Amino acid sequence: MNFNSVLDDVKIYEAGKPIELVVREYGVKESDIVKLASNENPYGTSPKVAKRIAEISKNMFMYPDDSMYELKEGLASKFKVASNNIVIGSGSDQVIEFCVHAKCTKDSKVIMSKTTFAMYEIYAKQTGATVLKTPDDEHNLEQFSKLYKENGADIIFLCLPNNPLGECVDKEDVYNFLKEVSEETLVIVDGAYQEYAAFKDANKAIDPSDLIHTFPNAIYLGTFSKAYALGGMRVGYGIANAEIIKILHKLRPPFNISTLSLAAAIEALKDESFVQECIAKNFEEIGAYETYAKEKGLDYIPSYTNFITLKLPVEYISAQVAQELLEKGIIIRDLTSYGLNAIRITIGRKEQNKRVIALLDEVLNNLSKAKVFD
Amino acid sequence: MNFNSVLDDVKIYEAGKPIELVVREYGVKESDIVKLASNENPYGTSPKVAKRIAEISKNMFMYPDDSMYELKEGLASKFKVASNNIVIGSGSDQVIEFCVHAKCTKDSKVIMSKTTFAMYEIYAKQTGATVLKTPDDEHNLEQFSKLYKENGADIIFLCLPNNPLGECVDKEDVYNFLKEVSEETLVIVDGAYQEYAAFKDANKAIDPSDLIHTFPNAIYLGTFSKAYALGGMRVGYGIANAEIIKILHKLRPPFNISTLSLAAAIEALKDESFVQECIAKNFEEIGAYETYAKEKGLDYIPSYTNFITLKLPVEYISAQVAQELLEKGIIIRDLTSYGLNAIRITIGRKEQNKRVIALLDEVLNNLSKAKVFD
Repeated sequence: MNFNSVLDDVKIYEAGKPIELVVREYGVKESDIVKLASNENPYGTSPKVAKRIAEISKNMFMYPDDSMYELKEGLASKFKVASNNIVIGSGSDQVIEFCVHAKCTKDSKVIMSKTTFAMYEIYAKQTGATVLKTPDDEHNLEQFSKLYKENGADIIFLCLPNNPLGECVDKEDVYNFLKEVSEETLVIVDGAYQEYAAFKDANKAIDPSDLIHTFPNAIYLGTFSKAYALGGMRVGYGIANAEIIKILHKLRPPFNISTLSLAAAIEALKDESFVQECIAKNFEEIGAYETYAKEKGLDYIPSYTNFITLKLPVEYISAQVAQELLEKGIIIRDLTSYGLNAIRITIGRKEQNKRVIALLDEVLNNLSKAKVFD
Repeated sequence: MNFNSVLDDVKIYEAGKPIELVVREYGVKESDIVKLASNENPYGTSPKVAKRIAEISKNMFMYPDDSMYELKEGLASKFKVASNNIVIGSGSDQVIEFCVHAKCTKDSKVIMSKTTFAMYEIYAKQTGATVLKTPDDEHNLEQFSKLYKENGADIIFLCLPNNPLGECVDKEDVYNFLKEVSEETLVIVDGAYQEYAAFKDANKAIDPSDLIHTFPNAIYLGTFSKAYALGGMRVGYGIANAEIIKILHKLRPPFNISTLSLAAAIEALKDESFVQECIAKNFEEIGAYETYAKEKGLDYIPSYTNFITLKLPVEYISAQVAQELLEKGIIIRDLTSYGLNAIRITIGRKEQNKRVIALLDEVLNNLSKAKVFD
């Protein structure tokens, strides 16, 4: 059977390996597994949110309120925007999908950084659009500007801070770049990790309301998957002017988040102190990796997120390091598929980080030794 | 800002009104509201499934196993197919979306019945494809055959049994029609309500394994939203040959169902007796509506599902009947947007059905009386 030819060029996203798989394939005990591969919040679900969901689990037979009235009211109040500035997605991921399908055909151009969230390219290619990438791995707005002036674009993706690298451009530089961009170009500011960046450095903080009122062609994406500790529940949002949001709603399938997901997100918004505590602990713990990297002479990218990317010297192969850790029950992310000899580690809880650093050290030392006898 | 021009012609799906809205807008007490608008299972979530989800609610921070190994194994065993014959969607809805995007461009043609599930047309129009509908409201395979011979098609939708009407074509007639269809045409057999049809009449039962082995261009869609009582959790599936499934996976976003949804579906598959009890009660209860319709001289479509469609005589306007019921706290579905002067009522529990029939009778009598004094 023949299929839509644009799909020939579409790759499948490689998700972090689940704990179940490591139990199944390597026989590691579930309690011995540390999963720091998908930037989940290692402090777990807010107890208040978990309690609420346990109480209403019998409601699973009922479709959610498809207008998502209460969640939108909560977000509108938090961000000081109107409800009709908000669209809810199954993760901010799905809002990316809406944006791409709203703007792109096979004649479209999409600009992004060389190394950034893989789904930008996957969704763009599903429409047959041409993907243009800046030369540097990290976001370089001069390169964005040059690429845009030379080619134009229907969509520009800015990942602030950037996944999977962790760097973050200053808000002022972002605004200066956006002034050059035509109102016909949709600028997607992916703020999946913004809560972390804003905590570490106020110069990185993007206020969604200010953004969309200054630049009516911009959309801000947020998520409950990271700082809000609901990665498994698939709730994200887009904030933009009402004209853009209205079009995105044409692409939103009915009931695109589950009844329990909707309730969990509403409840999570009421427990901001949990979120702030998690972020504070994240930046306390990230130091352990930075110290180890310096001791070991490994390059790392200063991170504005809940993960750290370690670039490995040529004598190590990141896929091999990740595989050896996996067999010991440590799940981290190899970045080979992003074209890098690097690993990305989610910042875990103190005891998890200690264990990961100790085992990473063991793996690296063994690989060095093996090399000596090669 | 300009958007993809195919969206000009895309309508937004009208979801059943949620209970929260009726409380908010009409001040009806929540406990007085009967919602029979969205074909949810009125017997609620299986207690075993609800218990399981309450126990694991603290896992919401973790992404689900994106390979969905255990769920696919469960479905493979139930339907006697292989895991690589299965794709999981956020509702079978999302599998429809995958199929449409896999096959269609703006040059494509899609055939469906005049009155059938609204999302078929919405997804088709998102790609710019041309939608061709048979003249009759209910499925008429001779008309499908004529339309197909005259125009060809990239996709044919068969809704068996059909939502929102409730009728169901015999399996033998479906197979005879499929023999005429080219292997290049993807035939989507939407079995969202198949469990009900199969219970009522073995001649309507479609076995997914037999279907896809007889017709390699067919895909069977199933869902946990109806008989399996997990409408709010958004889990559906497609069963087809491995070549088709592989392409659909290119369009499946990672983590497209939530951690709790995945666990709920796995658990629901283990409680088949709950499902069969719900279906048996459904067909006991449907008689109350049939009896009332006969007494009142209302036309109805014999239903192979968990809902019944009542066609109203010209002296009533279905939108008005639905609105008057809504203000009394009864949520049912007006079918005006489908071009019918009809209402669709989900078969509820005994006490719900009694209340709905009594209030429907009151509304119809009042409207008749008002007419007399016009």
